[in-house]
Amino acid sequence: MTTSPLSSDMLRAAIEAELHQIVDANLSAVYPDLKEMITYPMGWTGEGAGAEAQGKRIRSQLVLLCATAAGGDWHSALPAAAAVELLHNFSLVHDDIQDSSPLRRARPTVWKRWSVAQAINTGDVLFTLAFIALGRLSASLPAEQVLQANSLFQNTCLLLTQGQYLDMAYENQPTLPLDAYWPMIRGKTSALLGCCAQLGALVAGADQPRQSSFYEYGVHLGLAFQVLDDWLGIWGDVAVTGKSTDSDLTAGKKSLPVLFGLERNGAFAARWRQGKISAEEAPALADTLHTEGVYDQTLQLAHELTEQALIHLAQAVPDVDAAAELHSLTLKLLERKA
Amino acid sequence: MTTSPLSSDMLRAAIEAELHQIVDANLSAVYPDLKEMITYPMGWTGEGAGAEAQGKRIRSQLVLLCATAAGGDWHSALPAAAAVELLHNFSLVHDDIQDSSPLRRARPTVWKRWSVAQAINTGDVLFTLAFIALGRLSASLPAEQVLQANSLFQNTCLLLTQGQYLDMAYENQPTLPLDAYWPMIRGKTSALLGCCAQLGALVAGADQPRQSSFYEYGVHLGLAFQVLDDWLGIWGDVAVTGKSTDSDLTAGKKSLPVLFGLERNGAFAARWRQGKISAEEAPALADTLHTEGVYDQTLQLAHELTEQALIHLAQAVPDVDAAAELHSLTLKLLERKA
Repeated sequence: MTTSPLSSDMLRAAIEAELHQIVDANLSAVYPDLKEMITYPMGWTGEGAGAEAQGKRIRSQLVLLCATAAGGDWHSALPAAAAVELLHNFSLVHDDIQDSSPLRRARPTVWKRWSVAQAINTGDVLFTLAFIALGRLSASLPAEQVLQANSLFQNTCLLLTQGQYLDMAYENQPTLPLDAYWPMIRGKTSALLGCCAQLGALVAGADQPRQSSFYEYGVHLGLAFQVLDDWLGIWGDVAVTGKSTDSDLTAGKKSLPVLFGLERNGAFAARWRQGKISAEEAPALADTLHTEGVYDQTLQLAHELTEQALIHLAQAVPDVDAAAELHSLTLKLLERKA
Repeated sequence: MTTSPLSSDMLRAAIEAELHQIVDANLSAVYPDLKEMITYPMGWTGEGAGAEAQGKRIRSQLVLLCATAAGGDWHSALPAAAAVELLHNFSLVHDDIQDSSPLRRARPTVWKRWSVAQAINTGDVLFTLAFIALGRLSASLPAEQVLQANSLFQNTCLLLTQGQYLDMAYENQPTLPLDAYWPMIRGKTSALLGCCAQLGALVAGADQPRQSSFYEYGVHLGLAFQVLDDWLGIWGDVAVTGKSTDSDLTAGKKSLPVLFGLERNGAFAARWRQGKISAEEAPALADTLHTEGVYDQTLQLAHELTEQALIHLAQAVPDVDAAAELHSLTLKLLERKA
């Protein structure tokens, strides 16, 4: 064998196969347009289809790696992996309507290509398929365990919609209390990563305390990821991220560095309160934030959260091989950014 | 005892209590605005709150009546009843955005009161709560049976979203083949009523053939209901329905009488093809359709579908008392209209 038994390419291929099966079994070829509305955001059809358009499938890989790390067979976790991927794509389709985003992964968004009305429905179909995918766990798990997976998944959906609510509720306010920032990103990002990690452990038959360690690992991984994403939104390299780095400041996004800057109440805060920031001003204002210590503060927090994630991972006492993969996945999330 | 053990008032009170419990247990009081976005379309809060704003809760009552008719205790079916009610309300919230409808049950719709973005999320929360509600069946049913209920529910969601897709896909086309009309209303209306009836039987422990009879009863009830609704949309009494009767013709809605009229290819069809119908023309055009036999044809079909529903109900060999209630519920749906 030349590739690792847990190579990312192999896991991704298995995930795509599971996703295809679910879509083919549940969407009739009688309505090719409806099917295209689903296969397009999944990155399988339409202009630009392919690996880039599919995204990284990190969430579903996390499920499979955690299943292995908890001593299980990742094949049994494929339905759960597909479920989180479908849920993630559901939330992107609705999020793009809510944010009026014209592009996603360098392609027109679903609402832009069809209509807002059809895109709402497309999200609803993906949401339904996520639950159908999870139900396929019955093929290899006792019914009681499937219901536990359902329950975890449903609670995650609740946190996700709560985070989405907070995000929109604060959109038109000039600032956001840090008290509201954490529940928002917990809901929007880290609850789902926690769910992914716990689902893997649950499918592997881990007991409740161990499942909790996996959950906390995923949650902290998600928090670290989001904090870094916010850091990137101001100081990231355009060449690496593919988006303009001044966009978070000019868009008035209440990201963590902005909230930290407002807390310091210095030159950055004074300028922020005066209203919209132009693209010309943005680089200098990013430097001001940097000088005020927010660059380091944000990066430091991301590193601390990553440390915490790794501590929870160690507590879960995972299988050595899978731990190495998870460890490297965790650090990869950091490396691509810092 | 002065009231029937299956009085509608008593069932409705139990349904509202179950729904309240689910909403209170899952929506934090920390976000009162988000909670209001849910309690408002449920008819509990906001201007005009009360029985009118709650709708008739027919779907959830159907679950409980069918559970009793199949020999079960309706109390155990309350989680399923709440689930279908939440699913129905989810679909209304999204449907109102998709149709740009400003009013629902004589009150501003969710998107009108908040925003399209928040209304999409509100629908997503209701959808999530529907699955959470169904999960509460675990309290009184074996896990295997809960999974069967999940599976039925998920398939219903698929049919629902498929129906919604068809409805929107045909919106901008001048006509609709009858081949597409039936899957559309099956998805939009009757699949959910079939699901309600079968869920009741499933909770009561009915075997598969009997569950199928209940399902077919519900499906035919739904078809009859929709055909009558279409009839009403052209010939209904404004005083009874609360909506202007010419609206379906002036709105260009491809309802069944219109499709029947187009099939006859007479004076009605000739006028329809010329484009938009004004409010002034509508009454005369409704008379033309009537003269061409469509008034009777539509009503006759509704009666036949109701007959078929009652035949399936009889095949399910239900408990005599509950059958009487179901029989009367079935006819009530007809009477309010014809």
